[in-house]
Amino acid sequence: MSTLENFPYDELTIGQTASFTKTLTDEDIQLFAAASGDVNPVHLDDEFAATTQFGGRIAHGMWTGALISAGIALTLPGPGSIYLGQSLTFRKPVFLGDTITISLEVTEKLDDKQFVTLDCKATNQDGKAVAYGTAQVLAPSEKMVIEKPAAPKVSIG
Amino acid sequence: MSTLENFPYDELTIGQTASFTKTLTDEDIQLFAAASGDVNPVHLDDEFAATTQFGGRIAHGMWTGALISAGIALTLPGPGSIYLGQSLTFRKPVFLGDTITISLEVTEKLDDKQFVTLDCKATNQDGKAVAYGTAQVLAPSEKMVIEKPAAPKVSIG
Repeated sequence: MSTLENFPYDELTIGQTASFTKTLTDEDIQLFAAASGDVNPVHLDDEFAATTQFGGRIAHGMWTGALISAGIALTLPGPGSIYLGQSLTFRKPVFLGDTITISLEVTEKLDDKQFVTLDCKATNQDGKAVAYGTAQVLAPSEKMVIEKPAAPKVSIG
Repeated sequence: MSTLENFPYDELTIGQTASFTKTLTDEDIQLFAAASGDVNPVHLDDEFAATTQFGGRIAHGMWTGALISAGIALTLPGPGSIYLGQSLTFRKPVFLGDTITISLEVTEKLDDKQFVTLDCKATNQDGKAVAYGTAQVLAPSEKMVIEKPAAPKVSIG
């Protein structure tokens, strides 16, 4: 059974990094559309998407935002973190089968509030930045090593 | 059959508003976890979540971000919009059964690039702000009235 381990505020150092990788599947797009209500056909309809400047279906931009959030929640600082804010700049579309790596780096610590600033980059399998931004997090105060829940089993159709 | 209609750049006016509402279900949380890989137990595990400062399971912060994105993609400016950036400040947790309303308002137009800035607020059923921020969008250049795809049918377990 795998576990999740966090970095409490005192264990975090400027320059500390972590990464999180996921490959975009059709299922991811369908689930994201169902969870958010965003049924824009550029994400869901092959024929429509082929007529757009993208030439095919693309991920919701916020799917990449969700991967950044996942990286923060699962790895750096990990469980117990409280998400305060996020800026995102979207640079390139993410297509089915693209493998997105989220790179996080601690760039600032505010001792009195235990706030941490993280530089966030999302790059595809060709090393191109698809999105970047900055996260503000209230770091956990206590060490935690917890059981990692299994991903929910879902089916479509 | 319902349709989606957009507002091309020339139809957008400063002060124009739109809204988008969704109630958080357990299914939304499960689907968001599966789509993003974010299996943090504060979202998925009742027992664990009860031990946190929230006292119960909460939505992923980026679920609210995804609702903002849905509002932009479906209503203002609607289909054909290209998402350039988003800032988000998370103020309050979103619990199961909370009804979140996204309010969007056009605050700036940049004629040379057809960029639009939108003020974005997410409020719960008690009128409390759960998140707010600013979106940057490349507005569509052409009018579009298209068939609204059905939300994907999914099942869990």
